[in-house]
Amino acid sequence: MKKIINDPTTVTTEALQGMAEAHADLITVQLDPAYIARADAPIEGKVAIVSGGGSGHEPLHGGFVGEGMLAAAVPGPVFTSPTPDQVIAATQAVSGGAGVLLIVKNYTGDVLNFETAAELAEAEGIEVKTVVIADDVAVKDSTWTAGRRGVGGTVLVEKIAGGAAARGDDLAAVTAVAERVSSQVRSMGMALTPCTVPHSGEPSFTLADDEMEMGVGIHGEPGRERVKLTSADEIVATLLGSIVEDLPFSSGDNTLLFVNGMGGTPSIELYLAYHSARKYLAERGIEVTRSLVGNYITSLEMQGMSITLLKLDDEMTELWDAPVHTVALRWGV
Amino acid sequence: MKKIINDPTTVTTEALQGMAEAHADLITVQLDPAYIARADAPIEGKVAIVSGGGSGHEPLHGGFVGEGMLAAAVPGPVFTSPTPDQVIAATQAVSGGAGVLLIVKNYTGDVLNFETAAELAEAEGIEVKTVVIADDVAVKDSTWTAGRRGVGGTVLVEKIAGGAAARGDDLAAVTAVAERVSSQVRSMGMALTPCTVPHSGEPSFTLADDEMEMGVGIHGEPGRERVKLTSADEIVATLLGSIVEDLPFSSGDNTLLFVNGMGGTPSIELYLAYHSARKYLAERGIEVTRSLVGNYITSLEMQGMSITLLKLDDEMTELWDAPVHTVALRWGV
Repeated sequence: MKKIINDPTTVTTEALQGMAEAHADLITVQLDPAYIARADAPIEGKVAIVSGGGSGHEPLHGGFVGEGMLAAAVPGPVFTSPTPDQVIAATQAVSGGAGVLLIVKNYTGDVLNFETAAELAEAEGIEVKTVVIADDVAVKDSTWTAGRRGVGGTVLVEKIAGGAAARGDDLAAVTAVAERVSSQVRSMGMALTPCTVPHSGEPSFTLADDEMEMGVGIHGEPGRERVKLTSADEIVATLLGSIVEDLPFSSGDNTLLFVNGMGGTPSIELYLAYHSARKYLAERGIEVTRSLVGNYITSLEMQGMSITLLKLDDEMTELWDAPVHTVALRWGV
Repeated sequence: MKKIINDPTTVTTEALQGMAEAHADLITVQLDPAYIARADAPIEGKVAIVSGGGSGHEPLHGGFVGEGMLAAAVPGPVFTSPTPDQVIAATQAVSGGAGVLLIVKNYTGDVLNFETAAELAEAEGIEVKTVVIADDVAVKDSTWTAGRRGVGGTVLVEKIAGGAAARGDDLAAVTAVAERVSSQVRSMGMALTPCTVPHSGEPSFTLADDEMEMGVGIHGEPGRERVKLTSADEIVATLLGSIVEDLPFSSGDNTLLFVNGMGGTPSIELYLAYHSARKYLAERGIEVTRSLVGNYITSLEMQGMSITLLKLDDEMTELWDAPVHTVALRWGV
């Protein structure tokens, strides 16, 4: 295992300490129980959004904590759900009296632990709503999931719901827009190489030199099929073909196109794939008016990418454009 | 070779097309000769900064084109210098009548081609100054360099000089601050894995499973020595030890600490290394007041990192904090 670490058991803690030091103006970090919160939390009278999940997907979720997006993020160990204790502590710390929205990727452990935390928070008088993201069209049920997995769409839900919370929408309205984005977004990923969880020291799966995994999960879970390596245009056509037919997206739709790197993919490949995706969508009359290209929901050093497509309406576009000030997304501030 | 591409000969062109589509609000891209310019260039009466070099180091340089940083960037083929024609075309396109500063990393081909372009531009009546960056303490002379290589310090020079140009400093003043940053910044890198240039299809070098290259160049050129993999704290101590003794940095210095990923390194490893670097510097009384952590000058999918340390003065700090609106760095806008 080749990694820049000191000890596999302290990787996430040391990384959190680094984040806290590098971004002290923006976030505060607690180590036990571990969570990242806005430095200025709680914001009185505003809905607070809390998300989280296993580490190893950075910048998701800690990189999205700040004005206009998350109030707090709860990182578990690498590829492992955070505990209810962590979620409770974060929820209490950032609650500003207007309720808390939990955004949860659909993995069994995450859903269970956030649900437990929601019940405990409610018992302490904090109003809590939960939105579960399940945007991955690749597979129904998988290694760690009943139903579809939550992947790239999560980033878009967090930004757009964060915009609604920042402008003062109440908990019902913030929850409603998060659910609307969740219902209109679809994703699918692929991998050229596996990744290695520090604690295990072994690659999550193996692929021959001429193979790739189509529909791979963000923990290296199996996707739809293992196929021979092919061109970027064919990869994009497979991913977008599945995405477009699923919602379905249609000619005349106005969309946000998000090409996401899995962590180890060079930027030029992501932009090349983005160009390929634009051609694919243009041929089908699907318009792209907002874009995101880069490493936003990763799988450690995995090489590969995912494509996410969101059918935009005017309100979503306005909230996407609203100011955001986080480690990983920043504009208008 | 595992890459998301269509054809090794069209990788950079297709990636540029993707960049143009994804960031049409910010940049315009020309393909022949290839350059990326601010969408609103030329800015009349302001100094224009042009940089460039081989592709494969993204977001450097194209990701730094925009308000408060570069007026244009000139991308060569992967790991290959751009031609004088490209530099001339970009220089002419963005010249606003107040002169053009060329920021060049110290590689023989780049220096030669930018020099040729500078002479031709001068002959056409555009006042041009050149600053060559050579901040890599790892080696003196190397595969493609007479003298030290230009690496991570380039990002800091481009941001700070860009701030000076944006506030209206004249060409002499913008050049002076670029030279001052260049003189006060030092870097060193390391690699856990090689990278593969699409056109060659073969890894740039080989490393055993338990080896790393200390002092590696951003094209995979050899560094100081190939050693057994060790802990993050020891890696950081080697890199920062060489950096600190070179300038030298001393107790009481106020610095910007930049931990840069080579492209394939997970974010948690970069933050872990940043934390380690903060401990190392704190023990020596060196203060860190500004930070940058992430993939900013990369080597395709190489796993590894570089550390850059800049001794700040008040003006550099002010210009670092000044608004910037580019693909890869954005704040205050």
